[in-house]
Amino acid sequence: MSKYTAPLRDMRFALHDVLGIDTALPALGHEEAGRELVDAVLDEAARFTESVLAPLNEVGDREGCRHDKATGAVTTPTGFKEAYAQYVEAGWPGLTAPTEFGGQGLPHVVGFVQKEMVDSANLAWGNFPLLGHGATEALRQHGEDWQREVFLKPLVSGEWTGTMCLTEPHCGTDLGLLKTRAEPLDGGRYAISGTKIFITAGEHDMAPNIVHLVLARLPDAPSGSKGISLFVVPKFRVDRDGNVGERNAVACGSLEHKMGIHGSATCVMNFDGAEGYLVGQPHKGMSHMFTMMNAARLAVGLQGLGLSERALQNALAYSRERLQSRSLSGPKLPGKPADPIIVHPDVRRMLLTCKALVEGGRVMAYHAGLMVDTAEAAGDPAERERAEALVEFMTPIVKACLTEWGIECTYHALQCFGGHGYIAEHGMEQLARDARITTLYEGTTGIQALDLVGRKILKLQGAGLKAFGAMVADFCREHSGNPALAGLVGPLADKAREWEELTVAVAKAAAANPEEVGAASYDYLMYSGYVTLAYWWARSVAAAEASDQPEGFKAGKRETARFYFQRVLPRTLAHAGAIRSGAAPLMSLDADHFDA
Amino acid sequence: MSKYTAPLRDMRFALHDVLGIDTALPALGHEEAGRELVDAVLDEAARFTESVLAPLNEVGDREGCRHDKATGAVTTPTGFKEAYAQYVEAGWPGLTAPTEFGGQGLPHVVGFVQKEMVDSANLAWGNFPLLGHGATEALRQHGEDWQREVFLKPLVSGEWTGTMCLTEPHCGTDLGLLKTRAEPLDGGRYAISGTKIFITAGEHDMAPNIVHLVLARLPDAPSGSKGISLFVVPKFRVDRDGNVGERNAVACGSLEHKMGIHGSATCVMNFDGAEGYLVGQPHKGMSHMFTMMNAARLAVGLQGLGLSERALQNALAYSRERLQSRSLSGPKLPGKPADPIIVHPDVRRMLLTCKALVEGGRVMAYHAGLMVDTAEAAGDPAERERAEALVEFMTPIVKACLTEWGIECTYHALQCFGGHGYIAEHGMEQLARDARITTLYEGTTGIQALDLVGRKILKLQGAGLKAFGAMVADFCREHSGNPALAGLVGPLADKAREWEELTVAVAKAAAANPEEVGAASYDYLMYSGYVTLAYWWARSVAAAEASDQPEGFKAGKRETARFYFQRVLPRTLAHAGAIRSGAAPLMSLDADHFDA
Repeated sequence: MSKYTAPLRDMRFALHDVLGIDTALPALGHEEAGRELVDAVLDEAARFTESVLAPLNEVGDREGCRHDKATGAVTTPTGFKEAYAQYVEAGWPGLTAPTEFGGQGLPHVVGFVQKEMVDSANLAWGNFPLLGHGATEALRQHGEDWQREVFLKPLVSGEWTGTMCLTEPHCGTDLGLLKTRAEPLDGGRYAISGTKIFITAGEHDMAPNIVHLVLARLPDAPSGSKGISLFVVPKFRVDRDGNVGERNAVACGSLEHKMGIHGSATCVMNFDGAEGYLVGQPHKGMSHMFTMMNAARLAVGLQGLGLSERALQNALAYSRERLQSRSLSGPKLPGKPADPIIVHPDVRRMLLTCKALVEGGRVMAYHAGLMVDTAEAAGDPAERERAEALVEFMTPIVKACLTEWGIECTYHALQCFGGHGYIAEHGMEQLARDARITTLYEGTTGIQALDLVGRKILKLQGAGLKAFGAMVADFCREHSGNPALAGLVGPLADKAREWEELTVAVAKAAAANPEEVGAASYDYLMYSGYVTLAYWWARSVAAAEASDQPEGFKAGKRETARFYFQRVLPRTLAHAGAIRSGAAPLMSLDADHFDA
Repeated sequence: MSKYTAPLRDMRFALHDVLGIDTALPALGHEEAGRELVDAVLDEAARFTESVLAPLNEVGDREGCRHDKATGAVTTPTGFKEAYAQYVEAGWPGLTAPTEFGGQGLPHVVGFVQKEMVDSANLAWGNFPLLGHGATEALRQHGEDWQREVFLKPLVSGEWTGTMCLTEPHCGTDLGLLKTRAEPLDGGRYAISGTKIFITAGEHDMAPNIVHLVLARLPDAPSGSKGISLFVVPKFRVDRDGNVGERNAVACGSLEHKMGIHGSATCVMNFDGAEGYLVGQPHKGMSHMFTMMNAARLAVGLQGLGLSERALQNALAYSRERLQSRSLSGPKLPGKPADPIIVHPDVRRMLLTCKALVEGGRVMAYHAGLMVDTAEAAGDPAERERAEALVEFMTPIVKACLTEWGIECTYHALQCFGGHGYIAEHGMEQLARDARITTLYEGTTGIQALDLVGRKILKLQGAGLKAFGAMVADFCREHSGNPALAGLVGPLADKAREWEELTVAVAKAAAANPEEVGAASYDYLMYSGYVTLAYWWARSVAAAEASDQPEGFKAGKRETARFYFQRVLPRTLAHAGAIRSGAAPLMSLDADHFDA
């Protein structure tokens, strides 16, 4: 079984030393979120995730969820339900939720750190509380007063859980094709009918009620994505006064058999005239749903990060223990039968790649969290706008890159174990299987890439990129003479310039041929991720040097940054080459001639 | 469930049009292997693998092998045993084995094609007959006459199967640490005692006897890898006259629970004074074992290729059927609710990447097979030597690159299915799980990389690279004015030059610091693979243009080559950058400071 210890030192380094939350959060009105409180929350989150959730990770994988065909009931793996009760008891579900609905109102950036721990400890379990956050946001922003009153308190407390019911068998990405219908009843109620698939936590035994947020079509709806409305459909009916009534006509038809996250209930949900209420405006369901989706996308990015962290921890421990072959430069432990494999350059390559992607990715993700807080609470409207542009711009990068890197890190970490990584015993193969979902759900990597280039760069005219570019330029100017950053600032400034040039080139090409958007998208996304990470690594080195961290920690940051710049950042050359080649090599082959 | 149709057209194109086996094989004395016979063998292999093996792929994954703790017996999944009986009946095990032991003596390159089909159809099943080939070669080359007489006929016919018993719990890569003992008995017999792990097909119900080739230490053995001897230890004792006696003291202690290849029996084998015979010279076991290992490494490369092919076929079919979103340049099927996803540039990127790696990789693998034949049978000693150098050089590249690309292609193919790829129903996740073993067994990618740089480049002074470089140079000279190869020959010649420069740089650096070998190894290996593929793609285009293939097929080769050169080959820039950065960024961080 793989182990997990929350990397508190690095988490605190990212928050306090790199991102400076000790001054940033009070400036946003979060006077409560002083260093002492934040550290206490993280300590407690570490204790809970390490001792309660992490030991259930392998159990969940082995047992999976069970579905009773007769009743539609879903039983979660041994211990999951009890862990959830403890989670609710401790108040974790409402950590960052508004105080007016019983939440603790702590900053999102703190919630991001706690979420990373949950995902490292037990990704499958973490999916049960996850969707409640999205449902909370959708209802808070778009719901009527009585809906907020009735649904938000139990969602915030975690007494009830939530779902997002979007996908249908014939449509996932293209929700404009969806067929689920909503027929008006009396009293502002609607009868929802249709089949939804891939519904995370659609049914389970952890909570007495489940609040489904469902996309469906009204009778008079225009076709396509402009005819979709959002409904709230509880498992047990709830009236306008909050009275819980009888069972609604929604049931789990079956569970999917998946590659991983076996402990997570992925349900086919049948709505058979289930009673619900319209949330927000008719036909505006897609935009309301994006409220949930953007938060969920950042959350899935954290899943990639969490899995990478756990994979790295275990690969590192194994590489220090496993004795195999002698160092190329002569025995390092002559008294032992062989050297630990961490002496071998290629094992170090894999470990350092993970370390660079995890620690750099951590700062990138937490920064996005801080920008969510800033967009919500900054006093200056220009600062709010700038933060919002950064969140919009960074969301597809955080989601896609952290999950692609999650695939990569779980790959390297398993590889460090050799054949032992392939067997269940060490838990490494579970991490790899669990990671595989993260580049698929909440929008595939390809969809994130289209969102980045098509919407964030072209439609929003690169506002987020400009804001980020200004941060990079400021940093490079400030540190151009800093000897601790020699070899980092120059290449970073060059890459930032190249990023701008590539952006202009893609925009120009797209104006002439819309296929250029899709052709550039994936490589542009990954390119952006690597340059973003270069910035955070340079800033991490600067922050470490200025901190009172021990010398070993500083050396870790310094050497990993050097490794990143010299051994990982050159991947941008490959992505830039692909971007520059344009759409022709992708589009010119007739679909009929793809077979060999 | 995923489907499989043998890509006969492309296989024949690779054999006949690109590699020219119709003239090459008769020149090697294989007069029997004319076009008609080869094509008939491939047709029959296609029929068998498509109709018998492919349908059992999902069954094997779902059921797995079962182990009876009381008797040690292993039961294979439903249908596996019957399929094996048909395989033996049809004579497939001896396809390329020497006729003097009952084999058909066909060229190895033909065996490679048949092997690719088996691996596409059912990788887990394919592991049962696989090790018999290695055992055959080891006994043929190093065994005594009576051993050849007694063991080879049943191995060649497939009546018995073989194993390679190398790995022990504390040693895989570093076999010098192994502890299994061999005590001399009378009559030239030895009693073998020890525990071997990860033994593929170590126990099963398909054949009445299993011939274990076992590495163990004689009582007087020097320590380390120079004190290891090779023994043949049958499951049922066999005397020098070939009489099969009672059960030997070797038994399966348990089966491993693995991420994939569930249908393959991966056994812990306990030798408890099991009777066996020495094969070859005392203490020369390691070099004798390499006879088996090199063939097995090429075979595992074919496994990566086979999985990639099946993954691509299914992703392509799905991408043509699945209707989702409209093309960026306007509806392509206005009468349908959405366009097939193959119109989207990013889906094409994934499909074309697979197509480029599969079809290019196929020629690369078959060429290695033809070189095995050439090394064995060429009349001219210089030609044999050159072919042997090419096989030695290409073995780590074929093994590592085709398996790394297998991971990549099964990743892309699953990604084309979106969330549907993650559930068992479509079979794509099985392909990804099965592929994950291939970069681990028979030497991890890191070990292949060390073999390439440390042994094939430095120790053997790059004889294979020189031979391959001459092929590339000849081709570029010959086609420098060929308009069909515009945009290919120039970049290929440039890359070949850069490859040479990088090789010299690595050799120079390694002379000063042995850690540079390991530091460069992985990136040098992948770099070599991509340049090798560029050569085979350029040759494929030339061969297609000169052939009477239909225009659509020629367009497929031409456009995929363009895609490869413009969108995949730029990866060499990242690898070259990493190689040039040297060992310092990998080696300078103290192992104690890897924790964040």
